[in-house]
Amino acid sequence: MSAMNTVNVELGERAYPIHIGAELIGQTDLFAPHIAGSSVAIVTNSTVDPLYGDALRRALAPLGKKVTTVVLPDGEAHKNWETLNRIFDALLTERADRKTTLIALGGGVVGDMTGFAAACYMRGVAFIQVPTTLLSQVDSSVGGKTGINHPLGKNMIGAFYQPQAVIADIGVLASLPQRELAAGLAEVIKTGAIADAEFFQWIEANIEALNRCDPAALAHAVKRSCEIKASVVAADEREGGLRAILNFGHTFGHAIEAGLGYGEWLHGEAVGCGMVMAGDLSVRLGKLDEASKQRLVDVIAAAKLPVKAPTLGADRYIDLMKVDKKAQAGEIKFILLTRFGDTQITSAPDEAVRATLAANV
Amino acid sequence: MSAMNTVNVELGERAYPIHIGAELIGQTDLFAPHIAGSSVAIVTNSTVDPLYGDALRRALAPLGKKVTTVVLPDGEAHKNWETLNRIFDALLTERADRKTTLIALGGGVVGDMTGFAAACYMRGVAFIQVPTTLLSQVDSSVGGKTGINHPLGKNMIGAFYQPQAVIADIGVLASLPQRELAAGLAEVIKTGAIADAEFFQWIEANIEALNRCDPAALAHAVKRSCEIKASVVAADEREGGLRAILNFGHTFGHAIEAGLGYGEWLHGEAVGCGMVMAGDLSVRLGKLDEASKQRLVDVIAAAKLPVKAPTLGADRYIDLMKVDKKAQAGEIKFILLTRFGDTQITSAPDEAVRATLAANV
Repeated sequence: MSAMNTVNVELGERAYPIHIGAELIGQTDLFAPHIAGSSVAIVTNSTVDPLYGDALRRALAPLGKKVTTVVLPDGEAHKNWETLNRIFDALLTERADRKTTLIALGGGVVGDMTGFAAACYMRGVAFIQVPTTLLSQVDSSVGGKTGINHPLGKNMIGAFYQPQAVIADIGVLASLPQRELAAGLAEVIKTGAIADAEFFQWIEANIEALNRCDPAALAHAVKRSCEIKASVVAADEREGGLRAILNFGHTFGHAIEAGLGYGEWLHGEAVGCGMVMAGDLSVRLGKLDEASKQRLVDVIAAAKLPVKAPTLGADRYIDLMKVDKKAQAGEIKFILLTRFGDTQITSAPDEAVRATLAANV
Repeated sequence: MSAMNTVNVELGERAYPIHIGAELIGQTDLFAPHIAGSSVAIVTNSTVDPLYGDALRRALAPLGKKVTTVVLPDGEAHKNWETLNRIFDALLTERADRKTTLIALGGGVVGDMTGFAAACYMRGVAFIQVPTTLLSQVDSSVGGKTGINHPLGKNMIGAFYQPQAVIADIGVLASLPQRELAAGLAEVIKTGAIADAEFFQWIEANIEALNRCDPAALAHAVKRSCEIKASVVAADEREGGLRAILNFGHTFGHAIEAGLGYGEWLHGEAVGCGMVMAGDLSVRLGKLDEASKQRLVDVIAAAKLPVKAPTLGADRYIDLMKVDKKAQAGEIKFILLTRFGDTQITSAPDEAVRATLAANV
């Protein structure tokens, strides 16, 4: 068994550890400290449960808790109220009380919905994240953002709600489809680009190792991404300011996802392409040099992510970006790159945004 | 215009004022400090909007904000996801951003749903409570409990989320139907019974003035009830301990509401009758003297509240109480009265609970 790393997310009374390492799902002692009551509900999906459900149930068995499993349909298209309500139905049918602990076993969709269910069930119960995709290990399990989609916008309904712990088992990443791995690398690349030039260089140098799922490379990428995100979140838990930089690539990316219909492109794919567009806009507004933008595009392409946006029409893109959560009074806020490790949040002239759309679709 | 009283709910960075007085809905300067962004959404219902909607919109007009009104159907039966989603639909259609402020204009159902919508919309926006029933002025606008019902349990889905301010206009109570007034008095009586023997005596002495909507009596009842509840909530925001005493009468009461179907009895009516039952159980378990119990029953009856519970069958009552949010591992927790101003939280032998049910149905 390889060594385990732990990143602590410093949020005062809501602080929690992220454990990163191989074969962590089977380790009873990682779960034990975070389960206070007599019952546990594992929330997972129809793809992940057959792969890791039994391992998790075996790890929990020695604790002598009542364990229920709620199996949701797989995919972003199901990240809605109807699916969320299946969790509530199961909890109430099983008479899960306020001391119950939910365990999210799956990717970002399972994590976001389980976290939101935990935030709302009886006005708040404990939950543990066991992210099983690279994307959710580096991104959605850090920071307490939970929620569901609304037909008029992604993640529009949700809560800031922190888990008791995150258990990121690197071993499960070997079974990820290539598209899912690339989608996770998009957030790794984003984290380096916005906050740590040295880490960005490391990603450029190690992109092939990451592409072939090298465990040591992945463990470092997850650890460093979590550290960076944890420090940003600790400084700004509820996204009042600094935290918005984590949305680099997301303004364009969310428009791609919403415009195509959720689930058509993976979130990470949309963010990958969204970073190319945000980089282009950064250059167009004189914030970033062309060579840096090219390095950004190159590493995104090397991670096998799309760098050309789907055709939706410029008006539709702009319309979709106006309902972005960062928009204020209808004005779109863009996170622009000024150099690797540094960003600027600003509105942009309509012509520049349209030029970026024209150049990248 | 009569004097205005302000009760401050001390919750650190989530502290907020409760303004209590006549004709407050029309006072622009009470709203102005709590509206930061460029848009406001009034959430109300089809009964309240024709009565007070225009007055509130006139008060907001000088602020120059974009004001939207969302009119929900009236009644506890509509306190569900479908109705909540109408708020989200309206906010997204109007492109309400993160700086938007929701104003709940109505009773407890409107307040609970608007508060929960504010807690969840874009992971949290500001809201102001303008409670228009006695019940919501003394109870549901203080303490940050928000939520909706689930077919398997009342208020099972929700959040602790504090408003920016509560504006309790005593003037609106004159138009309340008698049943609604009595339902509010149930919570006033509860507050005195559990926390302040002197206030309980005041209620006994002034019950006729309260019944005929005497403004001075109502203003004092609302102020003292809010003060007491505010001090309990400040000590225990998330109901870890002390705050549970506010549920006196609610364990039986929730079972009555759920058993009959939400909306059949008003919440306050169920709590009134629930206090009679909790008082009976307190005597049966040797916690309370018979004379005090009789005083409790007498004042509940004098407030024109039901003192006999509906026939549901003892098994059904017990079943319903086991899904109460206070239950732990299937064991029902009762809040018992030991004397006026003092309570005890405990489980109870099945025979005693059944005897109470038999004696009060």
